[in-house]
Amino acid sequence: MSLPRIAVDAMGGDEGVRVMIDGAAEARRRHDQFQFLLVGDEARIKTALDSHPNMRGASEILHCDDVVGGDELPTKALRRAKTTSMGLAVNAVKIGDAGAAVSAGNTGALMAMSKLALRTMPGIDRPALAAVMPTLEDDDVIMLDLGANTEADARNLVQFAIMGAAYSRIILGRKPRVRLLNIGTEENKGFDRLREAAAELQNATGLDMQFDGYVESDKINRGEVDVVVTDGFSGNIALKAIEGTARFVTDLLRNAFTSSLRSKIGFLVSRPATELLKHHLDPNNHNGAVFLGLNGVVVKSHGSATAGGVANAVTVAARLLEENLTQRITADLAALHALKGDVDSNGSAEK
Amino acid sequence: MSLPRIAVDAMGGDEGVRVMIDGAAEARRRHDQFQFLLVGDEARIKTALDSHPNMRGASEILHCDDVVGGDELPTKALRRAKTTSMGLAVNAVKIGDAGAAVSAGNTGALMAMSKLALRTMPGIDRPALAAVMPTLEDDDVIMLDLGANTEADARNLVQFAIMGAAYSRIILGRKPRVRLLNIGTEENKGFDRLREAAAELQNATGLDMQFDGYVESDKINRGEVDVVVTDGFSGNIALKAIEGTARFVTDLLRNAFTSSLRSKIGFLVSRPATELLKHHLDPNNHNGAVFLGLNGVVVKSHGSATAGGVANAVTVAARLLEENLTQRITADLAALHALKGDVDSNGSAEK
Repeated sequence: MSLPRIAVDAMGGDEGVRVMIDGAAEARRRHDQFQFLLVGDEARIKTALDSHPNMRGASEILHCDDVVGGDELPTKALRRAKTTSMGLAVNAVKIGDAGAAVSAGNTGALMAMSKLALRTMPGIDRPALAAVMPTLEDDDVIMLDLGANTEADARNLVQFAIMGAAYSRIILGRKPRVRLLNIGTEENKGFDRLREAAAELQNATGLDMQFDGYVESDKINRGEVDVVVTDGFSGNIALKAIEGTARFVTDLLRNAFTSSLRSKIGFLVSRPATELLKHHLDPNNHNGAVFLGLNGVVVKSHGSATAGGVANAVTVAARLLEENLTQRITADLAALHALKGDVDSNGSAEK
Repeated sequence: MSLPRIAVDAMGGDEGVRVMIDGAAEARRRHDQFQFLLVGDEARIKTALDSHPNMRGASEILHCDDVVGGDELPTKALRRAKTTSMGLAVNAVKIGDAGAAVSAGNTGALMAMSKLALRTMPGIDRPALAAVMPTLEDDDVIMLDLGANTEADARNLVQFAIMGAAYSRIILGRKPRVRLLNIGTEENKGFDRLREAAAELQNATGLDMQFDGYVESDKINRGEVDVVVTDGFSGNIALKAIEGTARFVTDLLRNAFTSSLRSKIGFLVSRPATELLKHHLDPNNHNGAVFLGLNGVVVKSHGSATAGGVANAVTVAARLLEENLTQRITADLAALHALKGDVDSNGSAEK
């Protein structure tokens, strides 16, 4: 059986059609079973495809003229869900024309369109945005929510933990270590909702994850945790602080290395070391945030991602399809409710 | 007129008495007008003082046996405010025996003792913890609250902005640029309390600050803002994410530089550049977080600070005394209330 294809919003992002098509083509060079539905301006997509003979038999074009603006309010963009490249890519997942959608457009609009078209999975109250970040060790860490919900209660946080753990197992191939983000590791730290979620996760011993309590934001990238769970406000603050500081330090480093002739020579000699560092920190290597908890896979590529970054986002979408992310989350939710003795048939936990 | 002296909790911190006394002595070498009240075990303080003839005529010892534990609950520590080195250092400020207190002990206990002994200033509902961080430009940025209050409403945030701006003016010598931490810069982002605080700060045009709206956490260190205002949960998340990432990148860099002979040679040649980087990122160079909004100056030194770090914390305390921080905040609060047309005599804003 062939895999379901991936719908690519060719118009989103700061870099235009070419980088999206180049990225899809690069992903297909890595895995030649991918099939694509390319949504957007047909003439521009065709021009971009000219450089990629490997895409010819693998892609269909769905033409449209309309594009969601980068600064557009989600409520306004929602009204054009049926005419925009972003809306049509998401709709392709809804109607079964594709298994996953990838867009580099406006995050708020993509979230709103995806929620409305795909709806949340049974047992999930709110979807969450999850991303993968590097650590000092070999394994990557997943953090969620990164901004899909400004607030989250204890029940949301438990669901985020289950969704993040399912995603992490696909990446790591083992039982992930899960923690809640807090401002200390002592039991009395933070909010009531954190303590309630911690208590519930501590008791849910039958789940395919290891809950290790709280983590502070200076320990996210130490390799001691696989899934960091938080509300969208705190998650967004932590993610951007990490991204901003990585850039801040590399900018300082660049200034320092170019401040004297001796430093310049040192920089040239140690180029392999700084290349390694750059490779490790380049956000393109971890591109592709995922909306978890919907009936379908939607991946957000960074607006300024390179073709290599887009290829990574497309690969994330493909991998989650191959590994049946949605079904894994459903199974974990069922296990949680079985532990709690719920009889609710639609799978939502009663409080 | 001689300056009020500084009470130093000689027992707090992971590094023991010697680092606190060495730090105070280093601060006094920079500014020889400082006088000290050294609180803690007399014998150990005397031994540490033996290396510092410059401290002899400048310090008095207040002996006590009891010490607040690093993991002790603040509520428990509070009961020993009259017997511990931390409690007695803070009490010295209360009774006018010192103008400021510096401790490297348990942050929660120091906050609780300081609040109880010194009380919040008229017009301030809650004190806040503020720290200084480096930026890509020459000027440092101040962020608050960093964890004194888990939550903050709009009124608290406005007061934090006024306190942070008063502190920033002392450091920068000019009108500071103030922003609220948020997960986007659009008006509809974040919580109602952020929008309310933004509206009030926007209208308060007579204050000695320039309010520039929101800042995202990846822009804190770009040199575009002087004071970042937030609640204690988000502030603590952002601060630790920044600290942790700076350490993460320097660790990666160290690994990269030592991974090959060529890199090692490059590292040696470019040592001046990496020293500059290390100097810029060393937390000791920005040591000394301040509890703002109390009737007296209390400075928290990092538990693992070096003597040089302690010297910086002591210098922060001295500078805030010299520059009359508390009176500056009082004047700004009066200006805010005059703008709002409040007639409340104790200076607290009516809602």
